[in-house]
Amino acid sequence: MPSPVTLTGEAFSRAQFESLLKRRFFFTESFEIYRTAPNFKGDNRGLYDYGPPGCGLLANIVNEWRRHFVIEENMLEVDCTAITPEAVLKTSGHVDRFADWMCKDPVKGEHLRADHLVETVLETRLANSRLAVGDGKSKLDRLDVATVQRYEDILAKIDNYDGPELGKLIRELDIRNPNGNGVVEEPVAFNLMFKSTIGPSSASPVYFRPETAQGQFLNFRKLLDYCQGSMPFASACIGKSYRNEISPRSGLLRVREFLMAEIEHFVDPESNKSHERFGEVAEMELPLLDRKTQLSGKTAITPMRIGKAVETKLVDNETLGYFLARVYLFLLKIGVDAKKLRFRQHLDNEMAHYACDCWDAELLTSYGWIECVGCADRSAYDLTVHSRETGAPLTVKEARATPLEITEWTATLEKKLVGPRFKKDAKIIEQAVGQLGQDDLARLAAELAKNAVITISTDKLANGANSAELSSDICSIKQVTRVENTREYTPNVIEPSFGIGRILYSVLEHVYWCRPQDAAREVLSLPILVAPTKVLLVPLSNHAGFKPAVKSLAARLRALGIANIVDSSSVSIGKRYARNDELGTPLGITVDFDTLKDGTITLRERDSTVQVRASEDDIMDATRNLLSGMETWKQVSERLPAFTRQSVDE
Amino acid sequence: MPSPVTLTGEAFSRAQFESLLKRRFFFTESFEIYRTAPNFKGDNRGLYDYGPPGCGLLANIVNEWRRHFVIEENMLEVDCTAITPEAVLKTSGHVDRFADWMCKDPVKGEHLRADHLVETVLETRLANSRLAVGDGKSKLDRLDVATVQRYEDILAKIDNYDGPELGKLIRELDIRNPNGNGVVEEPVAFNLMFKSTIGPSSASPVYFRPETAQGQFLNFRKLLDYCQGSMPFASACIGKSYRNEISPRSGLLRVREFLMAEIEHFVDPESNKSHERFGEVAEMELPLLDRKTQLSGKTAITPMRIGKAVETKLVDNETLGYFLARVYLFLLKIGVDAKKLRFRQHLDNEMAHYACDCWDAELLTSYGWIECVGCADRSAYDLTVHSRETGAPLTVKEARATPLEITEWTATLEKKLVGPRFKKDAKIIEQAVGQLGQDDLARLAAELAKNAVITISTDKLANGANSAELSSDICSIKQVTRVENTREYTPNVIEPSFGIGRILYSVLEHVYWCRPQDAAREVLSLPILVAPTKVLLVPLSNHAGFKPAVKSLAARLRALGIANIVDSSSVSIGKRYARNDELGTPLGITVDFDTLKDGTITLRERDSTVQVRASEDDIMDATRNLLSGMETWKQVSERLPAFTRQSVDE
Repeated sequence: MPSPVTLTGEAFSRAQFESLLKRRFFFTESFEIYRTAPNFKGDNRGLYDYGPPGCGLLANIVNEWRRHFVIEENMLEVDCTAITPEAVLKTSGHVDRFADWMCKDPVKGEHLRADHLVETVLETRLANSRLAVGDGKSKLDRLDVATVQRYEDILAKIDNYDGPELGKLIRELDIRNPNGNGVVEEPVAFNLMFKSTIGPSSASPVYFRPETAQGQFLNFRKLLDYCQGSMPFASACIGKSYRNEISPRSGLLRVREFLMAEIEHFVDPESNKSHERFGEVAEMELPLLDRKTQLSGKTAITPMRIGKAVETKLVDNETLGYFLARVYLFLLKIGVDAKKLRFRQHLDNEMAHYACDCWDAELLTSYGWIECVGCADRSAYDLTVHSRETGAPLTVKEARATPLEITEWTATLEKKLVGPRFKKDAKIIEQAVGQLGQDDLARLAAELAKNAVITISTDKLANGANSAELSSDICSIKQVTRVENTREYTPNVIEPSFGIGRILYSVLEHVYWCRPQDAAREVLSLPILVAPTKVLLVPLSNHAGFKPAVKSLAARLRALGIANIVDSSSVSIGKRYARNDELGTPLGITVDFDTLKDGTITLRERDSTVQVRASEDDIMDATRNLLSGMETWKQVSERLPAFTRQSVDE
Repeated sequence: MPSPVTLTGEAFSRAQFESLLKRRFFFTESFEIYRTAPNFKGDNRGLYDYGPPGCGLLANIVNEWRRHFVIEENMLEVDCTAITPEAVLKTSGHVDRFADWMCKDPVKGEHLRADHLVETVLETRLANSRLAVGDGKSKLDRLDVATVQRYEDILAKIDNYDGPELGKLIRELDIRNPNGNGVVEEPVAFNLMFKSTIGPSSASPVYFRPETAQGQFLNFRKLLDYCQGSMPFASACIGKSYRNEISPRSGLLRVREFLMAEIEHFVDPESNKSHERFGEVAEMELPLLDRKTQLSGKTAITPMRIGKAVETKLVDNETLGYFLARVYLFLLKIGVDAKKLRFRQHLDNEMAHYACDCWDAELLTSYGWIECVGCADRSAYDLTVHSRETGAPLTVKEARATPLEITEWTATLEKKLVGPRFKKDAKIIEQAVGQLGQDDLARLAAELAKNAVITISTDKLANGANSAELSSDICSIKQVTRVENTREYTPNVIEPSFGIGRILYSVLEHVYWCRPQDAAREVLSLPILVAPTKVLLVPLSNHAGFKPAVKSLAARLRALGIANIVDSSSVSIGKRYARNDELGTPLGITVDFDTLKDGTITLRERDSTVQVRASEDDIMDATRNLLSGMETWKQVSERLPAFTRQSVDE
């Protein structure tokens, strides 16, 4: 794992970073006062609440997602319930297969996720071995070269083992619960969905959805009607999903309740999955890590034009390629560091049960590369299984541009004669004729023409025979041509699926740095687009004369819908700026004694700490332009007079 | 119940209205294809999915809520998990008291909500009695005047009966299950929360929250720190809540999963709950229905200045009054018809277990008056119980402007002598002294000064006695003065709580009407602020020359973040307009042959169907102004040239 660095290339201290997030209430463990209460029992890890700055950031990321994807592409957004009847998730495969492998330690009564157990124990052994070599500790810890190699191999493929394979590893390598060294039981599948019952009778089992996708699939027909049957189209859903993780860890990265944003793009499988707007992104270069590179044990990222990737079939089709490019643009826009972003292709055995190709957008954090957006081709899997189960036609019927002529051999029986001649056997004979294939019919047609009689195989007849003779008076076989004016097909689905919490956490790591002159002065360089608060308003001091100006500026910003915060606390103005740098507030407006004289105010930019001074109207215009992206800070700072009074910023 | 009318005063047909909502996919029953599938069993009523227009409307209402409340008042928004440990909801009272009364019909195996059962049966009897009078039907159905009066009395108070009372009514009035006429069992309490377990061991019970409030209370300390201890302040949370209703009904109005938006305004109980900005709303006149009027059996609405309502203590305090006014403004802004809005004060026995005063904003729909926003004063209930349970100090510590001097009688024991003299009894003696109140101490001080010895009551001592003598060498009692510089208190909470789904449904009813010339031409006059799509783009026909203009207009609107939709289908332009009137799309832009000549386009307003014609730039400016509220349609239509070609709109 590469060692993490901050935005400015310094070593990244996760402890310091997490202390900032906690101190400024970006998020917190849910029910924290209960967890520390003396009588509280129970497992409530993996649940997090967002505080005001985290919540503001979250809302802004979601709004930008909606603008970038839903509005930009006229996607059909839906909002489906999290509560889902068991029957739906039985059909989708989640009841049977949405599980992790879990081992029980019968002595401690602990449940351990099997792959995490193997991972932890082998990593510890490798670390101890390295230490043993280094400082001459107990030779018992030293592993031979072959063992080291084997452990590293296992760790590289840890996501790919199933339960029995993990069980075998655990026995072979004598892997035990690190807490107490107890022998663990065989891995069993543990379903990750939260189960409950609905209604007063307890007889109706439901689950809280593990993904938002199913609601979109079930509404496919209504969505198709809504867009007047025009294919391709995409639906989208933003909402909470729930997964009862066996052992939540890594803070916001593996949690039990989380916000997802998912797109289901429905496309005709016979269209090559081409995309109308692919040309707009074809020249973009994306950081790709393909399957082949991974199988050769490497992790090198190849920058490649997405146009070329699709041409060479590395990325399967234009629609998938288009979404990879759009995801890339979205992530950069909300603050992801391009150097810490890659698209990794799934290995064959790593894909979900429904997927036929998948690329993950992964973001590099201090926890390693984290899957934040999955872009999967789910083929026709979901629509097919739900349609089969319910009888609802989740298909597209399309007028054919040129009607399709289909010429087929067709056998016709003279009904009036069949009954009298075959009596009780009539039904069996009719069935046997109905089941004849095209090849058989072609052969029998020739035979009938030649001999005026044919013999066909049947189920057992009244006389015990397994065949019957049909003469040409009772049976005719001809080629018939029919015209199909419509075509019916089940669309394929390309699904970009976003874990918003993971993206939010990764962005925070990516935009974090400390001012070189003082490591305690931390900054979150959040893009203005997603920063929770856009403008900090500060009076120079608690001089009563500043209050009216601050109040009227706050009202003016509110009227423009610009989130702002007033800090009139008694600490120095430099400290108040620093406090808001920690919250990622990009702009600061100061009211000082000159404001009272000439009505001018100053505008400060967070990253550079540079300030300009101008009239209230000019500063408001500049603020609006910076927010809408019509001007950059560089343009503003060149256009408006600089302000450099020393006393203000330190 | 007043008979419902549309926006234009015509009779309201719920069947026609609901058919529109279904046809245009505002919302649908969730899992509809499963409900109609042959093998599907289970109770999955009360769950709804929002389709694209419903979802767009929902998102716009939520955004406006955030702007109107959170940004306008600098509220601290949080996003807390729905999953909640049992311990939290045990403390809050929900595990024990958040229940409805339910009767089982043992023959049919049905579970009926007891109050609904009584209501349905009595309403049917009253209706039958009226019919019996009218058309001379069976005299058996006729009720005497006293019985009619009694039934109507019961129905008026139906929300106020508890389980045993409902059971008594059911027995007395021989109320049975209308389905099969079976006798039902005694009402039992049915808890309305969805229960599950978290973690792999099944030993940790959790519930899905029935309200968002608890997460806000538990984070109180962090929120107080976040705003640097300044009181009063408000937090806010928007999110899904879950209630396992016994018998969901009335479409979106009583569902099992729903979006809430809740504000918890924390205020010093000794501040009179005054509000800094109350002056801004004091002159507003609100439609109030107070407790006294209701108890006198009336439902007349009194319009009253909120300033007067607070002065006269009809509304308990300024903060509650301020929120009623702000709620009023919000509801009107998103499309509520002022004539169908009232604030109803809760009766004493109707309030939730935590509330000490409550006003509901109720909206009139075809289902009657519906509670859509509850404004409750929850007093210090929640913070107090959670603090007691966890030991976390959910309090405010405040420096006192003038330190408080407290003079108290204090007894001191000479520790060195107590042990030797009282031996095993020492502890009991110390406890007894520690428990003496101020009055006792004053009396004993006088006694000690007079007699140099006092007698105090104690628990049983070693010698069997229940009192002991203390002489002045071992005990002294003096008045001691201490100075308190800080004050510690538990804030009270004023809670405006919004049911977003109910509001959305009511708004849709309020803005619905049909064009007088054709009852089949339905319109949803949604305010532009919340309309899901702002602009409909239509080419006059499918003439190829129109395409580039439409495409570039769509891109231009997208770049401005304006949700738009292109309708190039082959039906007449009048039909396409009508289709989008049904979706509430306020503006329509048409590209026609003149566009190709001079670049002008037309802009149509939904409600009046009036059109203007101008250059693309002028129409874009007008669109932006209409959206931001800077211009009204009246202003635009007077400023820009009218367009009246007959062929377009019909």
